[in-house]
Amino acid sequence: MSGLTHFDAEGQAHMVDVSEKAVTSRIATAKGWVRMAPATMEMIAEGGAKKGDVLGVARLAGIMGCKKTPELIPLCHPLPITKVSVDLEIDADLPGVQITATVKTTGQTGVEMEALTAVSTTALTVYDMVKAVDKYMEIGGIRVTLKDGGKSGRIEAE
Amino acid sequence: MSGLTHFDAEGQAHMVDVSEKAVTSRIATAKGWVRMAPATMEMIAEGGAKKGDVLGVARLAGIMGCKKTPELIPLCHPLPITKVSVDLEIDADLPGVQITATVKTTGQTGVEMEALTAVSTTALTVYDMVKAVDKYMEIGGIRVTLKDGGKSGRIEAE
Amino acid sequence: MSGLTHFDAEGQAHMVDVSEKAVTSRIATAKGWVRMAPATMEMIAEGGAKKGDVLGVARLAGIMGCKKTPELIPLCHPLPITKVSVDLEIDADLPGVQITATVKTTGQTGVEMEALTAVSTTALTVYDMVKAVDKYMEIGGIRVTLKDGGKSGRIEAE
Amino acid sequence: MSGLTHFDAEGQAHMVDVSEKAVTSRIATAKGWVRMAPATMEMIAEGGAKKGDVLGVARLAGIMGCKKTPELIPLCHPLPITKVSVDLEIDADLPGVQITATVKTTGQTGVEMEALTAVSTTALTVYDMVKAVDKYMEIGGIRVTLKDGGKSGRIEAE
Amino acid sequence: MSGLTHFDAEGQAHMVDVSEKAVTSRIATAKGWVRMAPATMEMIAEGGAKKGDVLGVARLAGIMGCKKTPELIPLCHPLPITKVSVDLEIDADLPGVQITATVKTTGQTGVEMEALTAVSTTALTVYDMVKAVDKYMEIGGIRVTLKDGGKSGRIEAE
Amino acid sequence: MSGLTHFDAEGQAHMVDVSEKAVTSRIATAKGWVRMAPATMEMIAEGGAKKGDVLGVARLAGIMGCKKTPELIPLCHPLPITKVSVDLEIDADLPGVQITATVKTTGQTGVEMEALTAVSTTALTVYDMVKAVDKYMEIGGIRVTLKDGGKSGRIEAE
Repeated sequence: MSGLTHFDAEGQAHMVDVSEKAVTSRIATAKGWVRMAPATMEMIAEGGAKKGDVLGVARLAGIMGCKKTPELIPLCHPLPITKVSVDLEIDADLPGVQITATVKTTGQTGVEMEALTAVSTTALTVYDMVKAVDKYMEIGGIRVTLKDGGKSGRIEAE
Repeated sequence: MSGLTHFDAEGQAHMVDVSEKAVTSRIATAKGWVRMAPATMEMIAEGGAKKGDVLGVARLAGIMGCKKTPELIPLCHPLPITKVSVDLEIDADLPGVQITATVKTTGQTGVEMEALTAVSTTALTVYDMVKAVDKYMEIGGIRVTLKDGGKSGRIEAE
Repeated sequence: MSGLTHFDAEGQAHMVDVSEKAVTSRIATAKGWVRMAPATMEMIAEGGAKKGDVLGVARLAGIMGCKKTPELIPLCHPLPITKVSVDLEIDADLPGVQITATVKTTGQTGVEMEALTAVSTTALTVYDMVKAVDKYMEIGGIRVTLKDGGKSGRIEAE
Repeated sequence: MSGLTHFDAEGQAHMVDVSEKAVTSRIATAKGWVRMAPATMEMIAEGGAKKGDVLGVARLAGIMGCKKTPELIPLCHPLPITKVSVDLEIDADLPGVQITATVKTTGQTGVEMEALTAVSTTALTVYDMVKAVDKYMEIGGIRVTLKDGGKSGRIEAE
Repeated sequence: MSGLTHFDAEGQAHMVDVSEKAVTSRIATAKGWVRMAPATMEMIAEGGAKKGDVLGVARLAGIMGCKKTPELIPLCHPLPITKVSVDLEIDADLPGVQITATVKTTGQTGVEMEALTAVSTTALTVYDMVKAVDKYMEIGGIRVTLKDGGKSGRIEAE
Repeated sequence: MSGLTHFDAEGQAHMVDVSEKAVTSRIATAKGWVRMAPATMEMIAEGGAKKGDVLGVARLAGIMGCKKTPELIPLCHPLPITKVSVDLEIDADLPGVQITATVKTTGQTGVEMEALTAVSTTALTVYDMVKAVDKYMEIGGIRVTLKDGGKSGRIEAE
């Protein structure tokens, strides 16, 4: 299975050797969303500091979840993350919440898994915060939209 | 914002008091998928023990991730999980991998966040294992399809 | 050193056997504060959702830190926490921020260490959030003000 | 709220970008204390290897707690800590135990939160070890007394 | 592969369902050792509070490691541990250090993995503490010597 | 107790200062085994993808456990691991399973504890996976067989 770098020649999983790779500046952005009933979305939008800041709690969970990436993803290398931001936006067309996470490092391997884990943890936390009033939400659209730095160069998607 | 139990009367986040709730048997099932190029899906399908067991690694990551739910989701209660299973299936129509996780506990609150976290971690690990050959995958369809036990009774969805 | 239950007869540290203790409802409240320059306190007070919600971030950190108590305190038993709340108040007389944490469990040992750890983590996070503008803050007044449930009965202090 | 670097222009919490900051040698020292009844202090002082080494257990907890700083403080960067020491001294005037922690790194941001977390975890562990005989202890005086390395230069306090 | 309860009928790993098993008192004892040069053993024996308490540090690491068992062993259930003790003895015949760990719980599954993990972490920590003076140590003899409670009854071994 | 670098002049445990040590490429290999009944070994050998992949699960646990080394071993420095591989082989002469782990880093201190922790976690997981059919297994032979990089030069053993 050439190409699947997480396995060796005998098909055994390993954490791939990155010790000879250059230390470079790397960035990745990932996106995702939580779809919900319009009324649930309204509750979140009206929230904020007074009635309960769903988005603020979820943002923080995403940032902290990002730091747990190498604990969650078995073959991920631990990386010295140098920046994490998580943006959440109410999207009436969805309807629900759009999530964007951006992560940076100066290291020997990319941070797309860190960005995806940030989005994923943020989405799960939004779900948890409002599940008492909406039992049919869906999390989706989780993908990498930007990756730069390292050997494979810049990759952009929407 | 009545209904959002994770906030108190002043809108401050708290871990809700479940100490008076009954200890009952609870179960939850969640689903999700990873969509990818047909060739990527073929690689995974041909894998298995000889060439690299992507699904086996992802299943284990999902089970271990499930145990981290209260560390990841800020207001989740720690729960004594009594069962976790994660099933992965190749789906040529997607094309990609379908994921189903089932979690049980005997406790004072439900396990749908645990099931969703298992699915989410499994999906992220599938992504990580094959991202070297496919840079445009998407994770989606993450939702609860069964929840039973506790006060709110049985909820089923597809 | 009779009385120090965390050591055995030879003075060796151990996690004390609570398997014969009754499972009862237990509660503990702890308090503490962060003292800072009046201008720093003003910044926090003016914050909130628009300019940066220092107290909201610190409250969440306290709740999550509470769940880490048995990882941090070597001889603490893991406990099924059933409630955590953390309140923060601006105190112009201090000047600074007053913190109160309340924790409940239904278990075989008390939760005062969990309440103290919640206060402590909350205070450290307030410190971290504003240390860029104030390098001479002090954290203090960390103590248990209420403990109830279990063999030793109700203890109150101020 | 200019100055509060942990928030962006819209007041949203983020882990600030340090990727352009220089990698320099950094050191921080923090202090704190646990005040207790004179008899409790005597028990600790008489302890040591034979009767139960409260200070040795607390020192180790402080060192291990220090490594957990980025897990506890939401917006802290993970850092490659290169040294941690924790000193504990009996102080009859307090009465109680004085704690001093010193942390070093070679990195892009300072280690005062690591030093404060070490002190805080050490103090909580002293409390836990002797709480069976003293229910009215207080933890306080937690502050940074030295910070050096990095852009803001040397800061000393007592 | 009947008998291997950690796999289902298709050979897929899962965390086995214990929700129908009785909650009973359970205990397990495990043993192990670290073999080293006689001079290394002497150094440890002469240590203690004055020169560096290798055994005290290792004991504490074993107790804390025990609490991490469900994080380390993929298919282990999280359990409410009610007691952990770790004993270390200098053994001139080995030569080296003998380790014994005893763990108790009141739960639905046994604690032999917790006892083995405590022994294993203790042994690794002894190794770490003295590896600067002895590069040829060996860890071995790790086995369960007592298991009681639960359906399979009492098992003793030496 | 000169030589025991994990203690200072007063015999107090500390995380030794490595900030002045050179950043170099470092590698370590450790080995160990799990001895079991011949029938248990046969079950594992016949396993693989169809009947339950004991070795695959244990390998992954070893890789993930390796990343937890600084959480488990109190005075270990956190290190940016750049490679981990874990090999398992059926050994009919033992009878049982032989384990070899190799770890690399580019850092200021060696990775033999990381390699030993990988072996140890792998062995514990093999034990856990088959303990339902074999209650008298033993884990042993855990030692460092190669260490290179850093000041002390290359060390090889069998």
